Amino acid sequence: MKSTFWTRLPITVLGIPAIIYLLITGGIIFAGFVSLVIFLCLYEFYGFKRKRGHQPNIMIGMLMSLAICFFYIEFPHPHLTNIIAGIIILVILGLFMELFKGKPHPLENISTTFSGVVYNAVLLGTMIALRNWDSLNGARFTMTMIFTVWICDSCAYTFGMLWGKKKLIERISPKKTIVGFVGGIVGSFISFYLMNMYGFIQYELTLFNIITLTFIVGICGQLGDFVESMFKRDAGVKDSGKLLLGHGGVLDRFDSLIFTSPLVFIFVLYL
Amino acid sequence: MKSTFWTRLPITVLGIPAIIYLLITGGIIFAGFVSLVIFLCLYEFYGFKRKRGHQPNIMIGMLMSLAICFFYIEFPHPHLTNIIAGIIILVILGLFMELFKGKPHPLENISTTFSGVVYNAVLLGTMIALRNWDSLNGARFTMTMIFTVWICDSCAYTFGMLWGKKKLIERISPKKTIVGFVGGIVGSFISFYLMNMYGFIQYELTLFNIITLTFIVGICGQLGDFVESMFKRDAGVKDSGKLLLGHGGVLDRFDSLIFTSPLVFIFVLYL
Repeated sequence: MKSTFWTRLPITVLGIPAIIYLLITGGIIFAGFVSLVIFLCLYEFYGFKRKRGHQPNIMIGMLMSLAICFFYIEFPHPHLTNIIAGIIILVILGLFMELFKGKPHPLENISTTFSGVVYNAVLLGTMIALRNWDSLNGARFTMTMIFTVWICDSCAYTFGMLWGKKKLIERISPKKTIVGFVGGIVGSFISFYLMNMYGFIQYELTLFNIITLTFIVGICGQLGDFVESMFKRDAGVKDSGKLLLGHGGVLDRFDSLIFTSPLVFIFVLYL
Repeated sequence: MKSTFWTRLPITVLGIPAIIYLLITGGIIFAGFVSLVIFLCLYEFYGFKRKRGHQPNIMIGMLMSLAICFFYIEFPHPHLTNIIAGIIILVILGLFMELFKGKPHPLENISTTFSGVVYNAVLLGTMIALRNWDSLNGARFTMTMIFTVWICDSCAYTFGMLWGKKKLIERISPKKTIVGFVGGIVGSFISFYLMNMYGFIQYELTLFNIITLTFIVGICGQLGDFVESMFKRDAGVKDSGKLLLGHGGVLDRFDSLIFTSPLVFIFVLYL
């Protein structure tokens, strides 16, 4: 389906208030939502390799991701014994299943299964812990991050369309320009600066804090977009999926957040 | 080099007392030894994929493994914030490095990098935590496990040579027989039973405990051997390396322990 304003509209209209509602509610509702997003991302990630004839173990991947979500739900005081035991048993079970299935390419199948968990669950799962940081700051920081990622994308697109010429990494994303990339950084800075100035973030940020957050969203988030494009190009697909109508797949929507969530999480851990 | 009694002798003569010494010493010395073994196993594991033209990121894999070793060194009270921050930053750095290197097969390179850490460090690293369980029981349990793996291998080899006919999983290990496999289980049971009866394990084990440990070493350990053979067959190599003279590579020597260590560790956690 061709992506137009009208095909994108329903998801936008439903998505934005839904995410705000989930963030404010928090708790197990928000954790369940993030887990669902991780499962969908994982499924699409595995799809990249199924295109190449490999057969990652979806069940093991999903259960390992669930164990990691529990780690983040209970962070900073997780039941380490249960979580590490669960992960170990799933890793060993996955290896034994591969042994008895006797499918071709066992090394690739098992590598994809485990790396999908690292790329999707270990990184994106941090959003659960970030939201739970504390009931007020956690929700507001997460909301600011998601909002700024969206501002960053929009500025990058607009700057690139208006003034973009020289490509950034042409072999991966032939449309993205250096000017667009800089536009994204500028947009991120302004977003964080204003959100802080008008008191939306309760925690008072210094200029250095704002520059750090700009680095995370403006640079790392945009590079995360390139990483997903690199994977899609390697797999020979255009969109990661079709679930979100004109928006492409779930992984396409969350590619920047896969990189910004864990880094903002680390940022607040050491704040 | 052909594997004979004489080429194997130096490693055997040096190896056994060295491991006993390291186990008794414990602490950072034993943790350092296990970390070194993990690095060597990881290097050999990555070698399987380099044979296929892929280029896993050795530096990122080693540093991630080191972070996981620290987790096990400090278990059950690890500095979770530092460890999770370290792992996340390494994962993201690995993805960005792949982006800028522009090498072929980025999905495979990154999958191998991360899955090597899961297979080697997450599983084998448990040996550090098992040894640190407590100063007396930890060392003795680990020693009993290593000794029983050796008894299991020897019994499987002897039983198989004398009475083995029907193959177990011929497409993976054309020499290993069902009788040999059963011999390994019998040997494991006798080893645990005697070690417990003569009081080498301080902690008094029930018959059910001994059967559980026999399942771990006799069945899971032997299957772990098959898993490594499956990987080697997929990569088209006979030995994982040449470091240990007639014994093959480090991974060849530790393939059973990669599966028994984490399971014995879980066993003592819930004892």
